[in-house]
Amino acid sequence: MEKFEEKYREYQGFFEGELKEYCAKMKYFPKVLTESMRYSLLSGGKRVRPVLLFAALELFGKEYRDEVNLAIALEMVHTYSLIHDDLPAMDNDDFRRGNPSSHKVFGEANAILAGDALLNEAFVLLLQEAGRGEEVRRAAYHLARAAGAEGMVAGQSADLLYEGKDVSGDELDFIYLHKTSKLIAAPVVMAAILAGADETLAEKFGLELGRLFQITDDLLDVKGDSARVGKTLGKDEQEDKATCVKVYGVERCELLADECAAKCLKLLDKFNGEPNFLRGMVDLVRSRDN
Amino acid sequence: MEKFEEKYREYQGFFEGELKEYCAKMKYFPKVLTESMRYSLLSGGKRVRPVLLFAALELFGKEYRDEVNLAIALEMVHTYSLIHDDLPAMDNDDFRRGNPSSHKVFGEANAILAGDALLNEAFVLLLQEAGRGEEVRRAAYHLARAAGAEGMVAGQSADLLYEGKDVSGDELDFIYLHKTSKLIAAPVVMAAILAGADETLAEKFGLELGRLFQITDDLLDVKGDSARVGKTLGKDEQEDKATCVKVYGVERCELLADECAAKCLKLLDKFNGEPNFLRGMVDLVRSRDN
Repeated sequence: MEKFEEKYREYQGFFEGELKEYCAKMKYFPKVLTESMRYSLLSGGKRVRPVLLFAALELFGKEYRDEVNLAIALEMVHTYSLIHDDLPAMDNDDFRRGNPSSHKVFGEANAILAGDALLNEAFVLLLQEAGRGEEVRRAAYHLARAAGAEGMVAGQSADLLYEGKDVSGDELDFIYLHKTSKLIAAPVVMAAILAGADETLAEKFGLELGRLFQITDDLLDVKGDSARVGKTLGKDEQEDKATCVKVYGVERCELLADECAAKCLKLLDKFNGEPNFLRGMVDLVRSRDN
Repeated sequence: MEKFEEKYREYQGFFEGELKEYCAKMKYFPKVLTESMRYSLLSGGKRVRPVLLFAALELFGKEYRDEVNLAIALEMVHTYSLIHDDLPAMDNDDFRRGNPSSHKVFGEANAILAGDALLNEAFVLLLQEAGRGEEVRRAAYHLARAAGAEGMVAGQSADLLYEGKDVSGDELDFIYLHKTSKLIAAPVVMAAILAGADETLAEKFGLELGRLFQITDDLLDVKGDSARVGKTLGKDEQEDKATCVKVYGVERCELLADECAAKCLKLLDKFNGEPNFLRGMVDLVRSRDN
């Protein structure tokens, strides 16, 4: 476990350094555009998607530092979705990662544009990197599909649709798969594409890990410490969101999370190489308190 | 002129047919996501950017029908920007192309997501097409940069920043260049990249045409017929937007538009081939009433 934490710090530290450098180079006018993009990109967070990309690349035998631009694009896509999710018309969240949300700092219009700019710039990076070769283009294409109307955006749309309604387990599965799992799986699949590893297995594991991530997210909303989590808690119940807790209750959710973690570990047994770091990720996501 | 109109109808008709087919194939869940994307994509409009792409491709000796997916991506990027621009937090426009804006029909949250989905799906298409070859990737990359934080989004941000303020001619030029010109120039530059034609000349002409487009847009807001234009007019003055009319007055704007059109035509004289259709485009944009 100590080794896992050390490695996590290595990946995260490398990413933070590169992201800071990238952000320092952004000199977009008007200033508020650059500042709002930087504000959300540099507000910390666990950097789960970049770390997963790096870990999977190393596992599949690739130098992870070479793909930092793909990691930045991943984080930009994730960050745009948080900014837009937090908007008053959407989830209306005033806090994110312990800081005021983008629209609280820069106003709604600038927050919409910060999200739009981050999404656009993610694809500027991806289309730039795609020039390096067909595998990179395929990896970028996978990310685009995971983020778009058959991916994350569909999940956000379903999330809104089912607010205040009774939802079945299947409907919940749809939300989970699209809202969260596809973008958590994306870095693992992208690494497999880049390394010529088993994409199907990579995706199965990534989607299961994403599901675990969302189950524990729903649990944190009920039982978490808002100072640790860095956002307003108890909002799911208040807004009658379709969550695991609403459909199954807390106790059954804990069991589902355990089952899900076990499935992740079982899938990892099928990986070539030594997926110890990814095992550590499963444990971390299962036991996370933020 | 008759020939120009005939050709415009050919390009536009081809595009509408292909776009309709593309939209019919979209089966995203939830339904509201698909419907909101279709609603804005199929609400008509002049299809200026696709038509410019097709015309420039033919001028440079390429089969324009082969690049319909790039044209659809262009229109998706343009359409996402309109949906987000119309939001209450942004320009707060209730009408677009003679129909209620997306947020009036689907609500604000769904309108935000419709825009996000269109932008994502534009890049899904672009990253798919980039697999056909390095020129296509470069063309797609150019579009991404024209749309993002050094392009259209910067223009929208500046547009907000200068609302209610005195603006200089230089500041107005910045807004024009970014908010409008870059995405009008993009199809002409993309065609040049795909055909191996002179990209610099293509960009100069496209940017000038974009400037003409925005000057006449500002003029229409003052003197247009709202039934013809399809949106609420007089809003620029009401919201004290930085427009050509505000900076120079109507009379001087008409002169600037004439100058701009003349510059466009002069640039076209330098093109190889027979740019008669593009000459027609310049006349159309100069004299448009919608």
